[in-house]
Amino acid sequence: MPPPLNGITVIDFTHIMAGPFCTHNLRMLGAKVIKIERPDDGDMMRHYDTRPEFKHMAPPFLGINTGKMSITLDLSAKEAGDIVLRLVETADVVVENFRPGVMERLGYGYNDLKKIKSDIIYCSISGFGQTGPLKNRPAYDHTMQAMGGVMPLTGEPGSAPTKVGFPVFDTFAGYSAAFAVVCAVLQRERYGNGQYIDVAMLDTSLVLMISMVAPYLIAADLPKKVGNRGFSNSPTADTFSAGEGLISIGANTQKQYESLCKCINRSDLIEDRRFISRESRLTNEVELRTQLEIGLRTKSAIEWEEILNQHHVPASAIRSIPEIIDHPQLTERSLKCRFSIKGSNASGTTLGTGFKLADVDQTEIAPPPTLGENTDEILQNLGLNHAQIQNLRRAGIVR
Amino acid sequence: MPPPLNGITVIDFTHIMAGPFCTHNLRMLGAKVIKIERPDDGDMMRHYDTRPEFKHMAPPFLGINTGKMSITLDLSAKEAGDIVLRLVETADVVVENFRPGVMERLGYGYNDLKKIKSDIIYCSISGFGQTGPLKNRPAYDHTMQAMGGVMPLTGEPGSAPTKVGFPVFDTFAGYSAAFAVVCAVLQRERYGNGQYIDVAMLDTSLVLMISMVAPYLIAADLPKKVGNRGFSNSPTADTFSAGEGLISIGANTQKQYESLCKCINRSDLIEDRRFISRESRLTNEVELRTQLEIGLRTKSAIEWEEILNQHHVPASAIRSIPEIIDHPQLTERSLKCRFSIKGSNASGTTLGTGFKLADVDQTEIAPPPTLGENTDEILQNLGLNHAQIQNLRRAGIVR
Repeated sequence: MPPPLNGITVIDFTHIMAGPFCTHNLRMLGAKVIKIERPDDGDMMRHYDTRPEFKHMAPPFLGINTGKMSITLDLSAKEAGDIVLRLVETADVVVENFRPGVMERLGYGYNDLKKIKSDIIYCSISGFGQTGPLKNRPAYDHTMQAMGGVMPLTGEPGSAPTKVGFPVFDTFAGYSAAFAVVCAVLQRERYGNGQYIDVAMLDTSLVLMISMVAPYLIAADLPKKVGNRGFSNSPTADTFSAGEGLISIGANTQKQYESLCKCINRSDLIEDRRFISRESRLTNEVELRTQLEIGLRTKSAIEWEEILNQHHVPASAIRSIPEIIDHPQLTERSLKCRFSIKGSNASGTTLGTGFKLADVDQTEIAPPPTLGENTDEILQNLGLNHAQIQNLRRAGIVR
Repeated sequence: MPPPLNGITVIDFTHIMAGPFCTHNLRMLGAKVIKIERPDDGDMMRHYDTRPEFKHMAPPFLGINTGKMSITLDLSAKEAGDIVLRLVETADVVVENFRPGVMERLGYGYNDLKKIKSDIIYCSISGFGQTGPLKNRPAYDHTMQAMGGVMPLTGEPGSAPTKVGFPVFDTFAGYSAAFAVVCAVLQRERYGNGQYIDVAMLDTSLVLMISMVAPYLIAADLPKKVGNRGFSNSPTADTFSAGEGLISIGANTQKQYESLCKCINRSDLIEDRRFISRESRLTNEVELRTQLEIGLRTKSAIEWEEILNQHHVPASAIRSIPEIIDHPQLTERSLKCRFSIKGSNASGTTLGTGFKLADVDQTEIAPPPTLGENTDEILQNLGLNHAQIQNLRRAGIVR
């Protein structure tokens, strides 16, 4: 069976993170993605690295632009209009992440492009959305983390507000937008119509935090800052020091607690009156931690991880990305997606959508494009001849 | 145009977070969701609150189970078999988040159910996936955060590994699974086949961290812990103390930096040799922070947010969830979804998919079901008569 977006063409007006990650997921689901880039320096993320071997091809760019085609085009030039309109005629989906109003001013808003292709699916991604008093505000992931309520929740109680250590909201907005586009393709498949989709990073960020947001909306429950403790708030669902490294344990039930005590050779703690029930363990949590860590210091976090899981206590040593990425579990899962790098003997790997669909191979993908790599090919396909392309190039409209 | 999952029926064998959040999103996209619950106490998340007004209906449960139907069923009883098979005959999608192997042992694995409904879409959600050496390990969000590489990246450099302050990976796995199901519905719509989908929290967690994972995979770049600093690593993309509160600023470009200095009445910093270029600002970042905070202390974070954004410097005061959730921006966005609560005059609000699709109303939804609320209705629809239902109830197979 072909992949879900087989035969679907996406015109990609996006740059940096959320937009390109949206179209990365669409590409991984089988779409053809034509990335439109500024002739001068293209997607700014190309330049997020200063090493010569990654000139114009910074690793963060490579990771989310594999398998796309690139055409340079100065969208502000009048002559670009005809090319955009011809491209849209051949397309199913448009994705853009300019500030609200920019595409309209260029003449490429939804209502403009709908005239060219009546069932076009048009997805706008922005910080705050296309409506509302903040719609014109720019947003970066770290300022959105400040806005979105996550920072006062992260870290130990009493610590200063802390940012999540990766661009979680920017990335999630892009993923959410890809999900939205697939929904719209399904609606078009079933009912024939295209549509406009408005994705805002602030909106999607709050959705990702639904387990904190909904209890506040429903019961005015104030979200609590719990450090490294699990959602259960059990004192044995937390991070502990081991002989070497740190171990995160999830002993929520009485059975898991007893199993934990036996594993660390501290069965005495099971009958200890201070720790006899979940409530008493919460009351005496500082002393409980001390006692547990006496047991845990006899082996390393990695050793405890094995032992505890064998005894039905969820546990994981705290790992860095390099420590998890080559774990045999991931090799077995075929999570990584290989690609070659143009003009180099190097190759790389990245990740796809994360979920596994039948007959959708996400283990190998075409290389990320160099800036404007497919300009001539795409323009020729639109019917432009060599002289016309040369004129555009001389005028600086394509590179 | 009807919503994307109009007419689609989901049989929902899930509990706690990732599974129910998956089917919550499917429900919000128009699917009918039939939640199968244990007759004794149902989904454990019903009991995450001890206040009498939320008995069996804890707010975190309500937030992600609105609009679903609930049938109680003891899946381990032989008599349940016929009911499950009849339900699956009427269904399009099955979602489950037991440990790998449990559904197979019950006789409800993909290969079993495919015999009943050849084009069934069957989505399994688990901690580590259905394959690989760790497949049998249980997982909670906080142990997965330990495993998945995020904790050593979060917090100020030198601080202990820190968990993200909400169940980010559990929630994202559920969202990803909903995305996968919609992809499979689209494939079935286009090509006629159902399929098996395998979603692992570890896999999807690494995908959400792609901006850190890909540069490591491609260039062996070690992800850095940068505290509250933005992805650009600019010293003026960070959190600063204001007169009242903290402000996150995103002054990445020279223009933004100059605008920031002018706004805080410190134009002298623009020409100051210590801060003349991005590189020198990085070198002298401690002194730069001191100077900027002298200017910033004259107004509150909320005031600076207004002023800086007006002058094209992205900025946001650090807000808690209560501080952002009633912001006029969100009212304008119609992000919140209202529902009533059965047997009470109370009503609540929750959130939908976060993205806005044409003709998909996510602003109002039916109430979350009480435990087994729809048991009789669903069994009657399957053709069971009153006496048969009473027999099942007496045997404790339904409640």
